[in-house]
Amino acid sequence: MLHALYFCRGIRYLSKYCPQRYAMIGEMLCKEQHDIVLLQEVWSEKDYLFLKKKLASCHPHSHYFRSGVIGSGLAIFSKHRIRDTFLYRYSLNGYPYMAHHGDWFGGKAVGMAILNLGSLTANVYVTHLHAEYSREKDSYLPHRVVQAWELQQFIRHTSAGADVVIVGGDLNMHPQDLGNRLLRAYTGLQDSYLKTAKFDGCENGMTLIADNPFISKKELVPFEKGIRIDYILFKGSTKAEVHCDSMCTTKGSVPNHPFPYSDHEALTAELRLEPHTPAETGSDRKLKNKDSTTGKLAELVDIVTEARTEVKVGLHCAERMRYTAARTGVMGLALLFLELVIAAVPYLALGAEQPFPRTSFYLLAVLCFAILLTTSMLYIFYTMELKSLQGAEDQMRLGIGSLQEKLKGFCLAQLHNPSGRPPEVQEPGAFEPEE
Amino acid sequence: MLHALYFCRGIRYLSKYCPQRYAMIGEMLCKEQHDIVLLQEVWSEKDYLFLKKKLASCHPHSHYFRSGVIGSGLAIFSKHRIRDTFLYRYSLNGYPYMAHHGDWFGGKAVGMAILNLGSLTANVYVTHLHAEYSREKDSYLPHRVVQAWELQQFIRHTSAGADVVIVGGDLNMHPQDLGNRLLRAYTGLQDSYLKTAKFDGCENGMTLIADNPFISKKELVPFEKGIRIDYILFKGSTKAEVHCDSMCTTKGSVPNHPFPYSDHEALTAELRLEPHTPAETGSDRKLKNKDSTTGKLAELVDIVTEARTEVKVGLHCAERMRYTAARTGVMGLALLFLELVIAAVPYLALGAEQPFPRTSFYLLAVLCFAILLTTSMLYIFYTMELKSLQGAEDQMRLGIGSLQEKLKGFCLAQLHNPSGRPPEVQEPGAFEPEE
Repeated sequence: MLHALYFCRGIRYLSKYCPQRYAMIGEMLCKEQHDIVLLQEVWSEKDYLFLKKKLASCHPHSHYFRSGVIGSGLAIFSKHRIRDTFLYRYSLNGYPYMAHHGDWFGGKAVGMAILNLGSLTANVYVTHLHAEYSREKDSYLPHRVVQAWELQQFIRHTSAGADVVIVGGDLNMHPQDLGNRLLRAYTGLQDSYLKTAKFDGCENGMTLIADNPFISKKELVPFEKGIRIDYILFKGSTKAEVHCDSMCTTKGSVPNHPFPYSDHEALTAELRLEPHTPAETGSDRKLKNKDSTTGKLAELVDIVTEARTEVKVGLHCAERMRYTAARTGVMGLALLFLELVIAAVPYLALGAEQPFPRTSFYLLAVLCFAILLTTSMLYIFYTMELKSLQGAEDQMRLGIGSLQEKLKGFCLAQLHNPSGRPPEVQEPGAFEPEE
Repeated sequence: MLHALYFCRGIRYLSKYCPQRYAMIGEMLCKEQHDIVLLQEVWSEKDYLFLKKKLASCHPHSHYFRSGVIGSGLAIFSKHRIRDTFLYRYSLNGYPYMAHHGDWFGGKAVGMAILNLGSLTANVYVTHLHAEYSREKDSYLPHRVVQAWELQQFIRHTSAGADVVIVGGDLNMHPQDLGNRLLRAYTGLQDSYLKTAKFDGCENGMTLIADNPFISKKELVPFEKGIRIDYILFKGSTKAEVHCDSMCTTKGSVPNHPFPYSDHEALTAELRLEPHTPAETGSDRKLKNKDSTTGKLAELVDIVTEARTEVKVGLHCAERMRYTAARTGVMGLALLFLELVIAAVPYLALGAEQPFPRTSFYLLAVLCFAILLTTSMLYIFYTMELKSLQGAEDQMRLGIGSLQEKLKGFCLAQLHNPSGRPPEVQEPGAFEPEE
């Protein structure tokens, strides 16, 4: 059984040649006949409806995920019936006042669609994480780490009933970045670029390349040639194995067109699903590679610990910002109080003249109110950010505890019973690397 | 195997006798030795930490879920190890400017904890939905329906790997309210009050009663005696059956204390878990009650359709509000423009006097800016509300489609093969009533 999967990024809002590029994407998708198409950055519903109409015959089933102010930009098109969908909005996603970055308004999220591929149930996820605007001074790193944490939680907890798991998305993380390691190690998802039997595309599987006319070369520094930040990940189950037979990317330009489809290169993976016969399934497979499981558990503990440290850095930063907002607010309040005292002078000392020019007086009052309003909104926002960061940190601490407990169980079992299976309580569950 | 479950509401922020009541709750929980304790409205982390310390010996495992500005207020205490936790924040939860209702600041959510109960895996959910402030004119109804929709989605999609599902919470819905029917019909969860063999507590299982000194009787109109809005729901699986052996509620006053624990009555349910031996499990059970499954599917289609209508009402309302915000914003802009023209008069017609008193001029400008700022924030907020409502409506439409498809499959199978099983494609999955 063979299933092709396509994953392509949509187009930035207000970007160049938008209608032409959607027409190009629609044509190409019609021609290539992928089973599943995952799109990001389809910010406008009109563009989604355009594609829906264009792909009505080859991809009769589709879903557009809505979130935030202009988002989530995520869409899925499928040849196979979409049985159910669910959307998880990340608790942290940048700052509304960083309007020039715009991520907050995009309402970043992960969308899930459940499809029937023959007799198999496939959970397909599409996501888009917060962008990295500076590699050296990445102030959004804690937010992206929390997003990766929530992504792995969402996938892990919702995919227990799935026979096949497929994740496609712009993770905005390099292959060895913390969030990426966290996601792969916790869920056991495989990177199709690393697992493919055949690859045809940009050097090192890069998806953001210097040759693309829609990106500025400055964004890529210090990676002049490009970076790999878009992924197709997959995982099988006891009911089916998944293999990546081939993978390819677009290579910047498109033949017979003056510009490429998007600012990112599109990824295509051909995944082969091998259903197990009932006799093959069962717990036998789970017992294989016990040593490697122990090693992986230990590695996972390290990764989660690293992520927790990063979240703590974010916590300190958010606390400092909230403190600054509170202090500025108090100053605004003091200034307002001072003004009221000055205003009261003529009334208290009858006959005394107003010691303050009227216009400046009013302007100052307005300034005080503006400061108070802004700082209270910022205070509320930072409190919410703090809550989310603390929540993620708590969950990570709990996760590390569970993993260490499991690791201890495995090690004890191996010490006392080198060839047997670990005790019943230590069943894999939260952590299920499928190799 | 017998497991007691306790569910108790915390205490409103800044309410009367807060420390005394937490001390009372702590004492009672220590004495009663429940397996699982689910709490809501624990707004302050200090109170959680107080309980954590107090219950350290009887409930060594606990988790506090954080969300929003002062929330989520949800906490779980357990005798059994908490293996994993996950939090889902509802996409809609009232309006920040309705500060006197305060729900928005509470960051309403559903928390999940995965526990090992012996050899069984239990998914325990605790939640708190948006309050109903007026039965006749409930402007939050679409929000609560969307919350119920997201709650059932979250439970359904995350509980595939669970042997036992337990949900406790203040749903702020009467037993036959739309959201409640939606939740129970889609997930197959059982209401322990309706299923219990023995009950001891307030009349009709009421949890918000007129005798409670912390609530005003006006809130209850037109239900003078009280209402039932807090629930313990449960569900078994192919690996275990769950029975509710007994249930009780507190009855307002507490012996030897001048006031009750909380404004809501606490619920206690004793649940008996009966693990199936491997021989009993399998697909046999799923084939029972095929007729009732068809009936339930048809009922579910009706309920989801009703929910969709309610969400559409919310959509129209949000659209109107957004339109009003936009119109007011444009008026503010027009006023500002007019002012600028007036201000330009002395410069254009040299020698002409400023036709406007200075103070009023500045005040008006401030007013314009305030209008512009407020309306743009409202516009953004309503856009996000619209996106969430549209998203829920889309998912409901998809859900209805899937259910109808399934129903058609069942009916066809029954027509052609009255005693056989439905065709393979129509396997229960999205909808699994466990009776």
